[in-house]
Amino acid sequence: MFDFSKYIADVPNFPIEGILFKDITPLLADGEAFKQAINVISDFAKSLGADVIAGPESRGFIFGCPVATSLEVGFVPIRKPNKLPRETVSATYDLEYGHNTLCMHKDAIKKGQKVVLVDDLLATGGTIKAATSLIESLGGEVVGIAFLIELEELKGREALASYNVFSILKY
Amino acid sequence: MFDFSKYIADVPNFPIEGILFKDITPLLADGEAFKQAINVISDFAKSLGADVIAGPESRGFIFGCPVATSLEVGFVPIRKPNKLPRETVSATYDLEYGHNTLCMHKDAIKKGQKVVLVDDLLATGGTIKAATSLIESLGGEVVGIAFLIELEELKGREALASYNVFSILKY
Repeated sequence: MFDFSKYIADVPNFPIEGILFKDITPLLADGEAFKQAINVISDFAKSLGADVIAGPESRGFIFGCPVATSLEVGFVPIRKPNKLPRETVSATYDLEYGHNTLCMHKDAIKKGQKVVLVDDLLATGGTIKAATSLIESLGGEVVGIAFLIELEELKGREALASYNVFSILKY
Repeated sequence: MFDFSKYIADVPNFPIEGILFKDITPLLADGEAFKQAINVISDFAKSLGADVIAGPESRGFIFGCPVATSLEVGFVPIRKPNKLPRETVSATYDLEYGHNTLCMHKDAIKKGQKVVLVDDLLATGGTIKAATSLIESLGGEVVGIAFLIELEELKGREALASYNVFSILKY
């Protein structure tokens, strides 16, 4: 398989002291590496019969949108509050300090649609867990969840244990 | 040409009273319409010899990333402050009330690279004007700027008069 790891930069102490940040911008900057990553995630989504791709703002858009257009299926943006103009459903989840809310248009998913969620990085899984609850509240079926990077020690895969989780790179 | 207009929803009084918001989510939700829009913008970028695609957070990612992977060229994210982990350049521009700042990694563009900027909507052009200044400060050449939608009465095209500006839909 294509060696994606050499396109990920380790940045120490970002966004705060003690965190080793995985910077994906070198991968995005390389046309071949970016395309190869999209191909791998697209193959995963296609094998599951995805009717639609969904991704959370904003780095989920970076991978989810090219996967959707490469499979020629629709894309559903999952956004922060007050960004989507029509009627939404929303889910709030806890962070270490405070909480976040995600929103989706109420008509974004049709009942019974097979949805593949795409995001750049799996950490604790809080964002994606909230996204699955939104999709399911609209009657969609989350058939798979794909990430470029998985940080294994944060055990996000356990938080998403009932789903088919795929990641290209594990750290 | 494909009729993109029927995939844009008019939402009155969003985000504030008196504004008729152009909602692009029906276009994204339709696999064929989304792919066709990406094809049209990709043809524009290819005809200009784009070495790299750049797009501002977060709706610029929705169109810019699929264009980049379809042409197999790199993508440069232009982000809000404190999102990019390495050394950045930044540009601040005025809004009706207050101001916004955009950032780009210092090594995101190589000198002489031909850059096509992609975003969803051209209004007054402030965001994209700031983006061009960042790209040019790094030695890149903005060979074209593409939008899904242009709101003509806001005269963004005049603010970007020195550039090759393309839009799929004009209102």
